[in-house]
Amino acid sequence: MLGAALLLALAATLLAVNAEASLGAEAQFVANTFSFLVWGALVMWMCAGFTMLEAGSVRTKNASVICMKNIGLYSIAGLTYYLIGYNLMYVDVGAWVGSASLLLGSAPDEVALLGGDEGAAAAVIENGYATRADWFFQMVFVATAASVVSGALAERVKLWSFLAFTTLLTGIIYPCVGAWTWGGGWLDQMGFKDFAGSTIVHSTGGWAALAGILIVGPRHGKFRPDGSVKATPPSNVPSVTLGILILWLGWFGFNGGSQLALAGALDAVAMSNVIVNTNLAAAAGVVTAMAISRPLFGRVDIMVVLNGAIAGLVSITAGPDMTDHYWAVIIGAIGGIVCSVGLRLLEFLKLDDVVGAVPAHRFAGIWGTLAVCIASGGDLGPQLTGIVAIGAFVFGVSIAFWLALDKMIGTRVSPEVEDLGQDAAELGIEAYPEFVLMPDQDDIDALSGSDVGDFPDR
Amino acid sequence: MLGAALLLALAATLLAVNAEASLGAEAQFVANTFSFLVWGALVMWMCAGFTMLEAGSVRTKNASVICMKNIGLYSIAGLTYYLIGYNLMYVDVGAWVGSASLLLGSAPDEVALLGGDEGAAAAVIENGYATRADWFFQMVFVATAASVVSGALAERVKLWSFLAFTTLLTGIIYPCVGAWTWGGGWLDQMGFKDFAGSTIVHSTGGWAALAGILIVGPRHGKFRPDGSVKATPPSNVPSVTLGILILWLGWFGFNGGSQLALAGALDAVAMSNVIVNTNLAAAAGVVTAMAISRPLFGRVDIMVVLNGAIAGLVSITAGPDMTDHYWAVIIGAIGGIVCSVGLRLLEFLKLDDVVGAVPAHRFAGIWGTLAVCIASGGDLGPQLTGIVAIGAFVFGVSIAFWLALDKMIGTRVSPEVEDLGQDAAELGIEAYPEFVLMPDQDDIDALSGSDVGDFPDR
Amino acid sequence: MLGAALLLALAATLLAVNAEASLGAEAQFVANTFSFLVWGALVMWMCAGFTMLEAGSVRTKNASVICMKNIGLYSIAGLTYYLIGYNLMYVDVGAWVGSASLLLGSAPDEVALLGGDEGAAAAVIENGYATRADWFFQMVFVATAASVVSGALAERVKLWSFLAFTTLLTGIIYPCVGAWTWGGGWLDQMGFKDFAGSTIVHSTGGWAALAGILIVGPRHGKFRPDGSVKATPPSNVPSVTLGILILWLGWFGFNGGSQLALAGALDAVAMSNVIVNTNLAAAAGVVTAMAISRPLFGRVDIMVVLNGAIAGLVSITAGPDMTDHYWAVIIGAIGGIVCSVGLRLLEFLKLDDVVGAVPAHRFAGIWGTLAVCIASGGDLGPQLTGIVAIGAFVFGVSIAFWLALDKMIGTRVSPEVEDLGQDAAELGIEAYPEFVLMPDQDDIDALSGSDVGDFPDR
Repeated sequence: MLGAALLLALAATLLAVNAEASLGAEAQFVANTFSFLVWGALVMWMCAGFTMLEAGSVRTKNASVICMKNIGLYSIAGLTYYLIGYNLMYVDVGAWVGSASLLLGSAPDEVALLGGDEGAAAAVIENGYATRADWFFQMVFVATAASVVSGALAERVKLWSFLAFTTLLTGIIYPCVGAWTWGGGWLDQMGFKDFAGSTIVHSTGGWAALAGILIVGPRHGKFRPDGSVKATPPSNVPSVTLGILILWLGWFGFNGGSQLALAGALDAVAMSNVIVNTNLAAAAGVVTAMAISRPLFGRVDIMVVLNGAIAGLVSITAGPDMTDHYWAVIIGAIGGIVCSVGLRLLEFLKLDDVVGAVPAHRFAGIWGTLAVCIASGGDLGPQLTGIVAIGAFVFGVSIAFWLALDKMIGTRVSPEVEDLGQDAAELGIEAYPEFVLMPDQDDIDALSGSDVGDFPDR
Repeated sequence: MLGAALLLALAATLLAVNAEASLGAEAQFVANTFSFLVWGALVMWMCAGFTMLEAGSVRTKNASVICMKNIGLYSIAGLTYYLIGYNLMYVDVGAWVGSASLLLGSAPDEVALLGGDEGAAAAVIENGYATRADWFFQMVFVATAASVVSGALAERVKLWSFLAFTTLLTGIIYPCVGAWTWGGGWLDQMGFKDFAGSTIVHSTGGWAALAGILIVGPRHGKFRPDGSVKATPPSNVPSVTLGILILWLGWFGFNGGSQLALAGALDAVAMSNVIVNTNLAAAAGVVTAMAISRPLFGRVDIMVVLNGAIAGLVSITAGPDMTDHYWAVIIGAIGGIVCSVGLRLLEFLKLDDVVGAVPAHRFAGIWGTLAVCIASGGDLGPQLTGIVAIGAFVFGVSIAFWLALDKMIGTRVSPEVEDLGQDAAELGIEAYPEFVLMPDQDDIDALSGSDVGDFPDR
Repeated sequence: MLGAALLLALAATLLAVNAEASLGAEAQFVANTFSFLVWGALVMWMCAGFTMLEAGSVRTKNASVICMKNIGLYSIAGLTYYLIGYNLMYVDVGAWVGSASLLLGSAPDEVALLGGDEGAAAAVIENGYATRADWFFQMVFVATAASVVSGALAERVKLWSFLAFTTLLTGIIYPCVGAWTWGGGWLDQMGFKDFAGSTIVHSTGGWAALAGILIVGPRHGKFRPDGSVKATPPSNVPSVTLGILILWLGWFGFNGGSQLALAGALDAVAMSNVIVNTNLAAAAGVVTAMAISRPLFGRVDIMVVLNGAIAGLVSITAGPDMTDHYWAVIIGAIGGIVCSVGLRLLEFLKLDDVVGAVPAHRFAGIWGTLAVCIASGGDLGPQLTGIVAIGAFVFGVSIAFWLALDKMIGTRVSPEVEDLGQDAAELGIEAYPEFVLMPDQDDIDALSGSDVGDFPDR
């Protein structure tokens, strides 16, 4: 009788445990893996966002080359990260760098399980997620860093030089930065916090872009001898807007997926917080950029507003996990201002960044990395160290490689090619061959001997 | 011996329970939350759909302003819904409205869990889903309602007046409607059924748009003194098509996610049904619009066909959960007809709705809300009450606010701005500055003294 | 005492079982179903990819008709597959074909469960996934096959003839092919392996397109009497690029979802592998196409490169489940070459395929189906049999139906319509009415009596 009572009590307990139970290990494995795959697919989609943003921002005569660069960089990033990048970043990382072995290593337990060995399941599940899903998620981040560069250097960097730089950036530079941080290296050990990569991804791209801007130089005629700045309006505003909205969508995967797990209530709550904060920061960036645009630029500049969204997103990326959402609003709002002011600063410094990649990704990235100290529990020391160390490393290696490329094969198209457009010169195609295009303002100016552009120069 | 047998029986039972078991509470929590996040991301994507649809539908001289309005409205919707909207709609709702407290309330248990207090997990899990995931999903719906308005009033409503109206619509009007229904207020108590918002979202947007149309008035020259209607063809048909396909994709999240749970087989089956019905209704709307287009408009009008897809989608949104799929086909098919006829009706009434938002969202929304009585078990009384009450409320408040705006800051751009285009006048930019554009037909007509447009006027 | 110890041991065992446990049956059901829905939504998105790819590839005067065809074919595919296709393909399939009964059958257990009968849950769960989720996933595949055809025949096939053919293809031809293979028919029994449809979907589309190309004939002036080939560059390169990137994204759903389950670690690992291989193959296709483009076409042709991505994706689709990822790189790389050479071959054969659908989908599809023998454990006999049998069946039925259509209603627009453009002639609209367009090169040639096009003819 007592035994039966005990048994019933036990049964009730166990059933209660089951009802309240955390996910079983395999359920956690499935959820973690599916989260990587779904959010990773959204991050891949950001490649289309950068492409449409950049293709709409450049003049029509360079739009096809920008398309080629973007599909090329995504392809190269995927291959180099398979060939070497992932190993450098995550395998046997000491303080500085991981393994230099080639090719993504196999996962013997996974291979055995796929081959029918059910005994391997336990070891596979023990890992918590499918190794290839993690690889996929990390790979799409590499491409994002490279995308930042293509926009900044548009309209004058040589196709092949750009792709060569992309190979280095995605195969070596980014993986090294990643090893120091997410890979568990010295910055991570010091306490550097960068949730989804304000510094690791976006500033890395921004520093590499800045190095390129310095070596390749501004577009012909962008900065006039009299100190004025030639206006180079986007050729296709709806395309730019579409690109921004794609990026906004993709960022839910970028930040949400960076929770790196969906193994239970804690992860689900955290991921939801992250996505809400991401959206609020972007919205706030839009609104402040809209507000500051007229005093700063003399009109409600849609390009500034769209960059405000990116700046809000980049700003929140280092620490989107706060539970007080007003911090997300504030950080994004300041990001929108930082980027807008940065756009003016770059013009002042005569640095020609076609899409505003440096203000939106590097300036906002630095701000976001510092903001972690305010709202997400980071320490100023490690954050500053990370910003400076990564900046110095990426900028230094990048400028050296851009210089080497410049000596070896040249980084800049000839003035004739720049004038004609890279599409016709490098690809033998036009982006919009059937549309009659305005003559270039330069040509009009040359003919008329004066500057009669109706778009406001600055 | 008996004890051992009992134990074995118990063990077998418990294992069997486990194998057949419903998901544990935490697994339900994870699945519910992830469903909100993934489907919510797809609904956010609808913002890009409206943007491309509208940017392609307006004339090129107003395409940039439409981009600005759409990214602006999505940002504003996110901020107002954080500031006040969600509380009005869901917190302590009595019959009419929820709490007027500011800022999305914190979720103390979630904060505790994220802070490391594992004891809070039980309370978090008890809620069934992460509160912020629910907020995210609800927030993207607000933006959809506002998107309906921007298309209808394109090409003449002032940017700032539109954004002011958006603030009211997303912060007050829509949350009130939502409180009556999904928030558990008087319409919900009466038995009003609107699964994903044919009336609550789409008709709300449609009524607000209609009020705006009446106050702002038609575009200059749209309705000629002789009674004829000036044709205003879309400037970029592929852009419109892309927008429709984005909306179609997003609608899987809109309707599928509105199951609001993925906690077990019942939810999974229901969600699958919903998505299949959503797709069938859209397809049927396309086909009937294609069939009816020639008798009604004299040609197979692609804009009518594309609106047919939207109408099919809006029609099924109130009750996509039927198990007899032919009802989805029928309801969508009728929706396509309702919208097509509605497009003619609006022209007849001299109401200028640039993208057909009122026919596609309000007419089809009314039809869909009534169709719930036929195929998804709704009662005519509550459905009619909901349609009329929500219509009267939204239309009344909207027209009052549009009027107030008109008196205070004006709602309509000046004739000169309308002529020049809002892009140049309000933003100082052109959407496609490098493309040579046709002279406006009005200018040709003015010059030639006659109407020589080759696009068929009606 | 012994009893208590036994009980404790039992409890520990059961808890351990729970922690290590495979997913419960209902959790498997939910995961399988959600996987179908999410990946299926991404495959639906491929419709937008084909639309943008094709609308950008054709000349502007035919861009609206391409939009109409694509939204039409997706709608028709969804309706025919509901009406008859799914039953033909999956219900009671013997060797050749399934049931010819009309309308998707109901799922009584699911209907009962939705109706509140909890006793039906066990039978529902027993099925492993929601039947409608599976239907949704299969349906979006049908549309893909039809999309292949629209691109190949663009700019001259009549709208209504194309839609009639689409009805046959999606309602009969594709379901028959599907019944032989995925439906469990004779090819499946023989051991034919085609994971996600290199042959079943892509080659089927490609063979149907080839039959159409033969009957409809090349565009006027494409192949000149002197043997030269008139260049017909894409009208909107960024649109084509966007289309390719949409397809790339959608392919993660196409191949990843074709694992058809997410019921545990095995499925999660397999799905991750599939997605990684899919991405690597596409990237490799891009790189080899970029490398081979200049020797083959005299320049780095962005259309060849973009088709390289598609070819890589099609090539890996038959067997993306290998664990040695270098095979994915190799197979995709060869796919890029096969497609590039195929583009030249088609020109040589004077077959006019506007978007390169036959090389990218059929040639690469054949290669991919054979490559299964190398890397994914297929046998040459069944693979060859499948390729030949499906090719002969699809090509034979298609050419017969195209011929019949040609006799009955004509398949080709008149020379006047082709000259004027299908948009104006068939739809009474222009895709870009406000943009001033280049005069057609033919008209220039006619006026000048010579061929002065600056785009390189071949």
